[in-house]
Amino acid sequence: MQLTFRRFDLRLRHTFTIARGSSDIDPVMLVELEHDGQVGLGEAAPSGRYGESIDTVGQFLGSLDLSRFHDPFALEDILAMVDAHRPGNPAAKAAVDLALHDWVGKRLGVPLYRLWGLNPEKTPVTSFTIGIDTPEVIRRKVEEAEPYPLLKIKLGSDHDREIMQAIRSVTKKTLRVDANEGWKTKEVALERVKWLEQEGVEFVEQPMPAADLAGTAWLRERSPLPLIADENCVRVNDIPLLRGVFDGINIKLMKCTGLREAMSMIRTAKACGLKVMMGCMIETSVAITAGAHLSPLLDYADLDGNVLTTNDPYRGVVIREGRLVLPDRPGIGVVLSA
Amino acid sequence: MQLTFRRFDLRLRHTFTIARGSSDIDPVMLVELEHDGQVGLGEAAPSGRYGESIDTVGQFLGSLDLSRFHDPFALEDILAMVDAHRPGNPAAKAAVDLALHDWVGKRLGVPLYRLWGLNPEKTPVTSFTIGIDTPEVIRRKVEEAEPYPLLKIKLGSDHDREIMQAIRSVTKKTLRVDANEGWKTKEVALERVKWLEQEGVEFVEQPMPAADLAGTAWLRERSPLPLIADENCVRVNDIPLLRGVFDGINIKLMKCTGLREAMSMIRTAKACGLKVMMGCMIETSVAITAGAHLSPLLDYADLDGNVLTTNDPYRGVVIREGRLVLPDRPGIGVVLSA
Repeated sequence: MQLTFRRFDLRLRHTFTIARGSSDIDPVMLVELEHDGQVGLGEAAPSGRYGESIDTVGQFLGSLDLSRFHDPFALEDILAMVDAHRPGNPAAKAAVDLALHDWVGKRLGVPLYRLWGLNPEKTPVTSFTIGIDTPEVIRRKVEEAEPYPLLKIKLGSDHDREIMQAIRSVTKKTLRVDANEGWKTKEVALERVKWLEQEGVEFVEQPMPAADLAGTAWLRERSPLPLIADENCVRVNDIPLLRGVFDGINIKLMKCTGLREAMSMIRTAKACGLKVMMGCMIETSVAITAGAHLSPLLDYADLDGNVLTTNDPYRGVVIREGRLVLPDRPGIGVVLSA
Repeated sequence: MQLTFRRFDLRLRHTFTIARGSSDIDPVMLVELEHDGQVGLGEAAPSGRYGESIDTVGQFLGSLDLSRFHDPFALEDILAMVDAHRPGNPAAKAAVDLALHDWVGKRLGVPLYRLWGLNPEKTPVTSFTIGIDTPEVIRRKVEEAEPYPLLKIKLGSDHDREIMQAIRSVTKKTLRVDANEGWKTKEVALERVKWLEQEGVEFVEQPMPAADLAGTAWLRERSPLPLIADENCVRVNDIPLLRGVFDGINIKLMKCTGLREAMSMIRTAKACGLKVMMGCMIETSVAITAGAHLSPLLDYADLDGNVLTTNDPYRGVVIREGRLVLPDRPGIGVVLSA
């Protein structure tokens, strides 16, 4: 089993700002796993929030020796070895997970949704993300987002009211809010959440710092809106601890190490009575489409990372009237862009 | 998609006694799901403990109309419909789940363990069950069980010490104890558990009535042996409630509705820090082998239901030096007995 990888710089349609910083270009690592004449595609989109960079991904993948494995079907063992290889490195690990799944699906001749017994007609509407920006740019972004019925907005700074005002001046669409840990005290968070309910917001993601679980539990008892864990829900073992603290979780392939763990997270979250959302980083259609194959199991989808870029080298899942439409090709099912 | 089913009476090697009763013959329902020229095999082994009998299985399956489904791959939707058809009826539902999985595996040409990415070399040793009986018969059963390195004994009556004495008079093997809710107070349970630790027992299954979760939690704080939930762990949603009450769970296909839910239970239990065991009813090789395909993910296996019978119409998984050895044929992979 042979792994090769190369850096690819995704260009952003707009400078992307969240509570933690901003960027114009987002590098990802594209991965190919070759075995027995068949190639599986994977991708790592590293995030500094989880201690990764394009360099750490390269170091992790470069140090990984998969030659001892002779069967990509052996997902449980291979991924256990990859996970144990080094701590952290979730996006690098996800790249291997994605490539293995793509390989298996291609070898069996079935799309991943079919391999998992899911109905491709049941994919949800995805939200479209509006980054933090000046009121003028935000208004323009919202207008450009006309085809998308659901918007997700990034708040969590001192400019929350300004941003909301700019958005509400041009649209009445349902909004989802991601605070990215931006509200530092529970009192501020409660005030914002109450206000956002008046503004037609559906739920709030990660209102407070991940370290303040007690504050979040306090907030949830008083919040009129559901709270979704993002930074607080990294891997499957985090989930049982979130009962009574959040109303749902946001799974991202790049923080949880890939599709296999994501499936475990979905099942565990549902058993814990938590709603399930899937989000993404800035990613090509490889990782976005991989996640979309799981989307018939989701309550909420936020899988727009590829749409926010201008040079996606692949095409796979598409968005029609806001809804995710899966390719029916084997594996992840992406092909090179024309 | 066409479902047919027929009753089959399994003959028991020995009259089988647990805390709740005894029997010589155990009827199961064998199921065939036909679609597109391919047949998938399933089986229901109903238990009165979960409100089922061979008659209720027949009524459930007879009332089920699968003709609206045109693709056995659509497991999530079909099984959701089957589950919603009527409450309860877990073994009848499992029969459909097994037949669908067998069909899909056969259509893709892969054994279930391979479809799930599991390593067939990692199957565990299974225990062999010794039913409640007279000391003389018990001694004979233990001697007949010579090829099996791990024994599971059924306790929970007033004869516990007698039974244990009979067993220990002929073997020093590691024992697992299933009390089947037989100890009615926490004080009795604690006394038995402490005594069993001295007798070389590995864990105790369902020491107290399922209704007494508080008593079980009290017992666990004091118990020198791990406690495994059986009657307390029926379906996946039960699992988060068992954290802090039990140390592990016993999954049975016939109480949880089948393989798909069993996989969710395994993932959820592991996330909750619970050990995972899989048990069985008196079943043919169809259901035993189906469960065995999941066994590389288990901490403990108790998959001997077919070995306890004398007229199993199928052969599939076999036990070698105590360890489960999976067939590598597609799907569940059973064939008719010679």
